Amino acid sequence: MPTCDTLLEHAIVITMDGDLVVHPSGYVATRGSDIVAVGAGPAPPDLVAAERLDCTGLAVMPGLVNAHTHAAMTLLRGIADDLRLDVWLQGYIMPVEREFVSPDFVRLGTSLACAEMIRSGVTLFADMYYFEETVAEATAEAGLRALCGQTVLKFPSPDATSYEDSLARAREFIATWKDHPLIVPAPAPHAPYTCTAEILRAAADLAVEFDVPIHTHLSETLFEVEQWRRDYGMPVIPWVKKQGLLDAKVLAAHCVHIDEGEMRTLKHAHAGVAHNPSSNLKLGSGIAPVVKMLEAGVTVGIGTDGPASNNDLDMFEEMRLAALLQKGSTGDPTALPARDALLMATRQGAEALHLGHLTGSLVPGRRADLAVVDVSAVHNTPTFDRDPHAIYARLVYATKSSDVRDVMCHGRWLMRDRALLTLDEPALMEAARGYARRTDTFLIEREGSVLSKLVAIGGAVEQESFEVQVKARVHAEAPALEFLAGPEVTILKATRYHQYDTWFFFADPQQGRLRIREEELLDAQGGIASVRARLTLTGQAQVAEFGNVLLFRSRFLAPATHTRRFYREYFKPVEERDVEKDRRRWLVAYRGVEFYVHLDHLRHPAVDGYFLEVKSRTWSRRDAEDKAALITELMSRLGASPDDTISDGYVDFTGKE
Amino acid sequence: MPTCDTLLEHAIVITMDGDLVVHPSGYVATRGSDIVAVGAGPAPPDLVAAERLDCTGLAVMPGLVNAHTHAAMTLLRGIADDLRLDVWLQGYIMPVEREFVSPDFVRLGTSLACAEMIRSGVTLFADMYYFEETVAEATAEAGLRALCGQTVLKFPSPDATSYEDSLARAREFIATWKDHPLIVPAPAPHAPYTCTAEILRAAADLAVEFDVPIHTHLSETLFEVEQWRRDYGMPVIPWVKKQGLLDAKVLAAHCVHIDEGEMRTLKHAHAGVAHNPSSNLKLGSGIAPVVKMLEAGVTVGIGTDGPASNNDLDMFEEMRLAALLQKGSTGDPTALPARDALLMATRQGAEALHLGHLTGSLVPGRRADLAVVDVSAVHNTPTFDRDPHAIYARLVYATKSSDVRDVMCHGRWLMRDRALLTLDEPALMEAARGYARRTDTFLIEREGSVLSKLVAIGGAVEQESFEVQVKARVHAEAPALEFLAGPEVTILKATRYHQYDTWFFFADPQQGRLRIREEELLDAQGGIASVRARLTLTGQAQVAEFGNVLLFRSRFLAPATHTRRFYREYFKPVEERDVEKDRRRWLVAYRGVEFYVHLDHLRHPAVDGYFLEVKSRTWSRRDAEDKAALITELMSRLGASPDDTISDGYVDFTGKE
Repeated sequence: MPTCDTLLEHAIVITMDGDLVVHPSGYVATRGSDIVAVGAGPAPPDLVAAERLDCTGLAVMPGLVNAHTHAAMTLLRGIADDLRLDVWLQGYIMPVEREFVSPDFVRLGTSLACAEMIRSGVTLFADMYYFEETVAEATAEAGLRALCGQTVLKFPSPDATSYEDSLARAREFIATWKDHPLIVPAPAPHAPYTCTAEILRAAADLAVEFDVPIHTHLSETLFEVEQWRRDYGMPVIPWVKKQGLLDAKVLAAHCVHIDEGEMRTLKHAHAGVAHNPSSNLKLGSGIAPVVKMLEAGVTVGIGTDGPASNNDLDMFEEMRLAALLQKGSTGDPTALPARDALLMATRQGAEALHLGHLTGSLVPGRRADLAVVDVSAVHNTPTFDRDPHAIYARLVYATKSSDVRDVMCHGRWLMRDRALLTLDEPALMEAARGYARRTDTFLIEREGSVLSKLVAIGGAVEQESFEVQVKARVHAEAPALEFLAGPEVTILKATRYHQYDTWFFFADPQQGRLRIREEELLDAQGGIASVRARLTLTGQAQVAEFGNVLLFRSRFLAPATHTRRFYREYFKPVEERDVEKDRRRWLVAYRGVEFYVHLDHLRHPAVDGYFLEVKSRTWSRRDAEDKAALITELMSRLGASPDDTISDGYVDFTGKE
Repeated sequence: MPTCDTLLEHAIVITMDGDLVVHPSGYVATRGSDIVAVGAGPAPPDLVAAERLDCTGLAVMPGLVNAHTHAAMTLLRGIADDLRLDVWLQGYIMPVEREFVSPDFVRLGTSLACAEMIRSGVTLFADMYYFEETVAEATAEAGLRALCGQTVLKFPSPDATSYEDSLARAREFIATWKDHPLIVPAPAPHAPYTCTAEILRAAADLAVEFDVPIHTHLSETLFEVEQWRRDYGMPVIPWVKKQGLLDAKVLAAHCVHIDEGEMRTLKHAHAGVAHNPSSNLKLGSGIAPVVKMLEAGVTVGIGTDGPASNNDLDMFEEMRLAALLQKGSTGDPTALPARDALLMATRQGAEALHLGHLTGSLVPGRRADLAVVDVSAVHNTPTFDRDPHAIYARLVYATKSSDVRDVMCHGRWLMRDRALLTLDEPALMEAARGYARRTDTFLIEREGSVLSKLVAIGGAVEQESFEVQVKARVHAEAPALEFLAGPEVTILKATRYHQYDTWFFFADPQQGRLRIREEELLDAQGGIASVRARLTLTGQAQVAEFGNVLLFRSRFLAPATHTRRFYREYFKPVEERDVEKDRRRWLVAYRGVEFYVHLDHLRHPAVDGYFLEVKSRTWSRRDAEDKAALITELMSRLGASPDDTISDGYVDFTGKE
């Protein structure tokens, strides 16, 4: 007499099998970790079940497959929204990750994500994050199935100080977890632009060695693709192919900007693609050509991406959006019908993760990964049963994640009657609120100080210095030039620049002013020899005054690697002013002391005549006073009278007289 | 001592007032139908409240405004999906509406929609449908506020046999309901392409006369705009302005395809726009230029459109989608931030309905229309409170409609702890299922018969007739032409055509074959005198045979007003064949009986020689036998030997010999 552990009967059974069979009233039987029988009508009368579940009026479907996420980023959900990708990522996400990401953070964030995913009917997800062994542990404890990708990056990350470290980490992780019943480990080289060719190759070799998939981001933004075309003369997919990446079983997130040739390449390499419609829209990346990919034979799943760019893990939202976007963007309402969207979110998603042999459809022999869904809520009433495809439309267009009632993974119930059985949800939520409070405190402190925000975006070399300086307006350049050509000074170095400065002013003047300087070093013929961009936070306070000579404290943060637009959106200045000038600069020795002499001509705001500036770095108040006396003397010899001295910088100089 | 009826305390109060004030912990007090106090911190200690509601951890926000829907269409939810607009509308929605829409249907559908909208936090919606007085009654009983638009169309509708009738209906409806506390009545001329200039003007005059808004659809599809440019030399907005429509307080749904000049026109006319992101995507209409409209100063709300094209009434989905779509389509993730999306779904939505003075924000003196929302579910945990805008992101990007806990409209609770207080939801759902079953039966019957499907799409004149006919292949035309020029026949009419036929074959041959014929009538010089397109359902069965002469039954359905693509997607033939030919046609009298004589030359499939056909309408078996004898004789005189007779039509003729 056949036996089973659990028998779901009288259900609308949506198998998503090869023939896309739907049983308007049918049954699903599970034993151990597997599905053992699926059929129409009542279950065979001789089938003995330890547990019987009457699913009248409910749909039983494969658990959804979230084909791309960063689960632990639940702890960064809503931390910063409606920002451009670089400001969001480099201004908020990465600084907070540097400060907070730890095994404890990853465990909590992953468990919270599992709670949310179970509630929305997900039984398999593809992850990519740091401390991935902790993601694996938390996921296995929650009872979910996951493809866990250990991040590999070319720069230091929260869990590795170098890429060699992160590769070694990935190897150890894969070796440890490769035979786990729920977890499939994988290396996750983050993206071409955050890896090197060598890293991609090494990660692919690792995946091939252990016969595991490889999880990465490809062609997410037009910027990335344009950069690749410029730097390598080809788009991203052929380049990663050249590096051997496609020799492994690739799961590529995004692929928003790929052409038909690249689609063919992905198809031939049996690569899976994870389409992330919410994230791609929210970050302004665009709409992936899903219909074209499917027509080209590419295996495409659907993912939520991390909850920081979504801001949730709701696969019902993603399915609906995937279907609607293809219709709206192609102008063809028959594009990506509901059935195909559900297929992408189940069996085809599992195939994109290279796990279609295990899960994604209700087929005897596959794992018992399934969801029981109420498809008769008021927002889903009435229903028309005439068209066998109508059930797909109900699930994709009108069902909500809150309609999921029960979830089973690997034959184990994870949720019954909307109660989670493997996770202590209130405790997780309380712990998450604790993390959020600490993160808020960290960010409030940082946001309160321009200097802290500068430090937070990293890559900056902080240098604090004190300078004595004086500036005067002169009507002719000849006296200065004649004196500098004379015997009383030794010129150690002479340079010419064309400088474009943007000054940011903040509501609190104590914060100082932030200067973004793009500087063209000119050669003898006036051509551009080189260009550099630097950030300087100046004038937080004038420290002292010696006659006309001022003592300032400056902080130099160099170089400026972001765009002005980035700094504007990140620092949110209350005001901004531009200054453009020609500068001649001499490093001179005068009476045995080194000084910088600047002879400037302002182009914007346009001002007649010249400005003369003498400054020197100083180390003590005594030294500052001595140098102040010499500066006063030197200014006079250069042709500036004390009456011409101005205390304001150019940025305060309106050009009106 | 100040008193109030209901005091909501310790809430996150999101006022959406002119300054967009948010109180992280505050209160809202209502008395009668109105809000009487809103503030930060605890309520004043002397405020006496009949009912106090502790809203710790909950958000209190204005009820959402669904700026465009057809509420009663809940009863058509999911009836047909993933179809092109014309197939969906003219093939399914309109035939079912013609069959089922009645006051009973409208009452039930509206009540069901009210249940769903209350559950998702909506307190005001803009409707457009038939029997709008019934919509108004059902809405008022549910306790919701609505702008109710009585449809006016140029063709007969379920509630009016002519446009004069529907205008008279609208007038009576407005006069009856204009002072109702919850209902604002309006005329709703459906769209420029379903009205005439005269109807638009009359509807606008009616709205102005009663000082009520006017609800319509404008510029939904590119097709509509292109048609207007072609027929009137201008896009839709200037044309409706010319008709006087913008003299009224317009609420225009869609505006997907309008240019910047049209946006300025809408702004100057103080017209409101209802943006329907899901519907516009699902029907392939496109993505409305919302950011540009807002920049131009147009008042834009958000709507779900009818549940048949959505497939639900979930304003949380629409807000999220509106925000994401603008980012994705402009490539700018800062476009339409969460706060602005929520504004569109509340105060600005009410303003688009010309009801901003009544509702849409939590301001003393406005109506007490509000929702209490749990913003701390697992999918919304944790939260960061550092940024005052974060609450908007939580509501728009991560909150679900199922997070709405309580809803009040006009000072009356409609839902408490997710229980509906004004509607019997199970009874409504049961009644809706009954309608769906009847609709399924109707459609199953119709889908089973090509003839029924033809009748269902309307506009067709059904004519049944019996014909005797014979066809023969001849190698030369001369014998026939000579005989026709001779004395034995009288030519009553002679014409020449160029005919393009597409034949649809169905799985069940008993269904017959459907012919779509485009026919060019040629003038004496061979130029095209006129063109017409007709549908004919033929050959369902050959009724009898008299020698070589066959008796057929035909049904003529004329004219063919849709495209071949429409018919293909609507009828879903299993096979399709094209036939193209030159036809000379004579109506002749031979021995006192009228016959049609056709001399055809096939161009596709290309066949040498000619085909001769003689046919006559017949009325009885006796008559048919008599005519069959005459036809055999006539065929012979025309030069066809009985051996050349073929029984197949051209469509079965492959051209192979």
